[in-house]
Amino acid sequence: MHQTDHPATGRLDDAHPGAQSGARSYARQNDIADAACTVLSKIRARAPRVHCITNTIAQAFTANVLLAAGAIPSMTTAREEIGAFAEHCDALLVNLGTMDEERRIAIGLALDVVARIGRPWLLDPVFIERSELRCAFAQDLLACKPAAIRLNAAELAALTPQAEASSRAAILCAQTGAIVAQTGAVDTIIGHGRIACLANGHPLMAKVTAMGCAASALAAAALAVEPDAWRAVTGALALFGIAGEIAGMRAQGPGTLATHMLDALYGLDDNAINTRIKIA
Amino acid sequence: MHQTDHPATGRLDDAHPGAQSGARSYARQNDIADAACTVLSKIRARAPRVHCITNTIAQAFTANVLLAAGAIPSMTTAREEIGAFAEHCDALLVNLGTMDEERRIAIGLALDVVARIGRPWLLDPVFIERSELRCAFAQDLLACKPAAIRLNAAELAALTPQAEASSRAAILCAQTGAIVAQTGAVDTIIGHGRIACLANGHPLMAKVTAMGCAASALAAAALAVEPDAWRAVTGALALFGIAGEIAGMRAQGPGTLATHMLDALYGLDDNAINTRIKIA
Amino acid sequence: MHQTDHPATGRLDDAHPGAQSGARSYARQNDIADAACTVLSKIRARAPRVHCITNTIAQAFTANVLLAAGAIPSMTTAREEIGAFAEHCDALLVNLGTMDEERRIAIGLALDVVARIGRPWLLDPVFIERSELRCAFAQDLLACKPAAIRLNAAELAALTPQAEASSRAAILCAQTGAIVAQTGAVDTIIGHGRIACLANGHPLMAKVTAMGCAASALAAAALAVEPDAWRAVTGALALFGIAGEIAGMRAQGPGTLATHMLDALYGLDDNAINTRIKIA
Repeated sequence: MHQTDHPATGRLDDAHPGAQSGARSYARQNDIADAACTVLSKIRARAPRVHCITNTIAQAFTANVLLAAGAIPSMTTAREEIGAFAEHCDALLVNLGTMDEERRIAIGLALDVVARIGRPWLLDPVFIERSELRCAFAQDLLACKPAAIRLNAAELAALTPQAEASSRAAILCAQTGAIVAQTGAVDTIIGHGRIACLANGHPLMAKVTAMGCAASALAAAALAVEPDAWRAVTGALALFGIAGEIAGMRAQGPGTLATHMLDALYGLDDNAINTRIKIA
Repeated sequence: MHQTDHPATGRLDDAHPGAQSGARSYARQNDIADAACTVLSKIRARAPRVHCITNTIAQAFTANVLLAAGAIPSMTTAREEIGAFAEHCDALLVNLGTMDEERRIAIGLALDVVARIGRPWLLDPVFIERSELRCAFAQDLLACKPAAIRLNAAELAALTPQAEASSRAAILCAQTGAIVAQTGAVDTIIGHGRIACLANGHPLMAKVTAMGCAASALAAAALAVEPDAWRAVTGALALFGIAGEIAGMRAQGPGTLATHMLDALYGLDDNAINTRIKIA
Repeated sequence: MHQTDHPATGRLDDAHPGAQSGARSYARQNDIADAACTVLSKIRARAPRVHCITNTIAQAFTANVLLAAGAIPSMTTAREEIGAFAEHCDALLVNLGTMDEERRIAIGLALDVVARIGRPWLLDPVFIERSELRCAFAQDLLACKPAAIRLNAAELAALTPQAEASSRAAILCAQTGAIVAQTGAVDTIIGHGRIACLANGHPLMAKVTAMGCAASALAAAALAVEPDAWRAVTGALALFGIAGEIAGMRAQGPGTLATHMLDALYGLDDNAINTRIKIA
């Protein structure tokens, strides 16, 4: 659902990505629905603060997705005050789109704070396949222990250049200890011995900018309220895919899709989640 | 209606905030409706230029609110040209969201120009309760004589730390000579011996980013065309609340709310204003 | 359709702007429809990468217009990686809104790359009539051989201060060798001995920010896939105007107009183009 995702490039191989790892167990539909319902009710009840270091293209839609779900966004990247905002956040999103010096400095400062105060953070390595500098920066960030990484197929390939396509997510997961969520026509969330393959969503989501960025922000909000990181990310991406699917039924194109997604996310309830959840 | 406003935190105490000040008179419904009608017709007739130094999250929605109302936005923050833009503006908005060095420099340069050429400016001290640096910067700006300040309850508390909740707006007003507009479920506009308590709006407005920022921009546009600053701000916030209320009736959630607000603002007429205006 | 365009200021003189140039031939309706159909099918088939150095206000809508049409946007302005993104682009957009040091540096670096690898670029000199610095910078950029320039009447006047209103576009075209597209209530595209006067569009387009910026981005996408630059720009602006016109019929105001424009652009087909195309 990322801005650079064509439905085709995000599609998984026939073999599930965790197939070789053996020890992993596939999550069942009702476990995922349960994770999604839990995440949504906790976000609404606790209104977590999510500080987003993200690109300027994605900022408004990301903030609106967080607000629609019940979270509170903040987005400054100024070095003088990023620390103060990070001190009060419940989770941090680090998105590498529109990478510049200000954002690189802000990321370092914010990561220091969340490491100290023990808040989860999520890495979204946007477009790292297009710039070696950005890719190297993303590699460095892996050492700062993200709770989760959300990316698309091309970005995953850039982060794991030596791996076979089918084992990349498992390798990145093993290297970092992070939950690895690869999104596309199917979203695969792998980590802590579990794997989920979500088939919700709508092809029009690939025609709206910042979809992947906003999905990452929602996953960060989920990490703030759900201590089981795999359940948090799986639940959040299920919510996002279901909201996209509902919006897709109402939309006449990508413009109305984006608008209706915010409405759908705001209006989601357990019944809609349980009846719509779909695994691949 | 601010991005950080929950409907609850914006609610006023039972006692009206200006209660202690005695000398203030409460505006009646038809005076406020008259201010709103006047402001709208003047903005449409004169198309004032409003230069907005605002955060990147709010820029597009803010520009669209100004255009929908009939004003002309500009938004550069580059130090080399901010002066040229300020020279040609009819009012200036200074919004402290996404505070960075570039914006701090731009604010200083722009304020020098508007002081020299005699244009009104409005301060929106976004999120100053989250960062001491930002709060100190806002305090400094008060000396530059804003015509008006628009903020929410938490921001007002940060600006007036020693004051009791019920007297903060009156104190800030007395200290600065500015119109002080505190927005939330009820908007209170205080200054020049008058007070208005507006009860229009819709709870979904708190679920859309940049609502407060855009309301500030509309108030700045009103200051450009209406010399009575209290009438300008009161009229603008009444227009904004009524547009939000109309949009709320048409909306299925925060996505459609934001879209319909622009339509509602564009389509407002005296009849809608007069029949909908509501005081607290 | 630009953010600073009032329907009135964009209106052309009664005399067509190329009237004096004699040697130019006016394009017929079906030639323009053919250009629009060709441009749309090529963008959809090839999904060109368009790197956009543009202002932060316009970024999200611009990206969504490109995605709706079938192109792939990228938008970084960081000096460390702008080169890598320019290397992989099929066309470059240089928009001067929110001009700052970062963007000026990025523009220089990106133009060096596209000159070396032979990719077309389009100049959108936003608001140059408001700042001498910005206007001088735009003048300098003309030496870097843009394939096309899209601007409104005030911006064209600022670029050709000595010329008569009716001959400005022709003079700029002769000076630069670029296709010159002046947009407003009528869009005039002039260059390579041909001229098109397009009358599609809707008055509400002037009430939405970044309309002109997004039209420029679509024209850049067209330059990436159609080697005849005049056909590319003419076709792209025809598509944009028709999408705006369809959206205008569905819209209740500027909010729904912007949303429906993305839907309309995404859903355009040859039949809609052929039946709706309208020349002035």
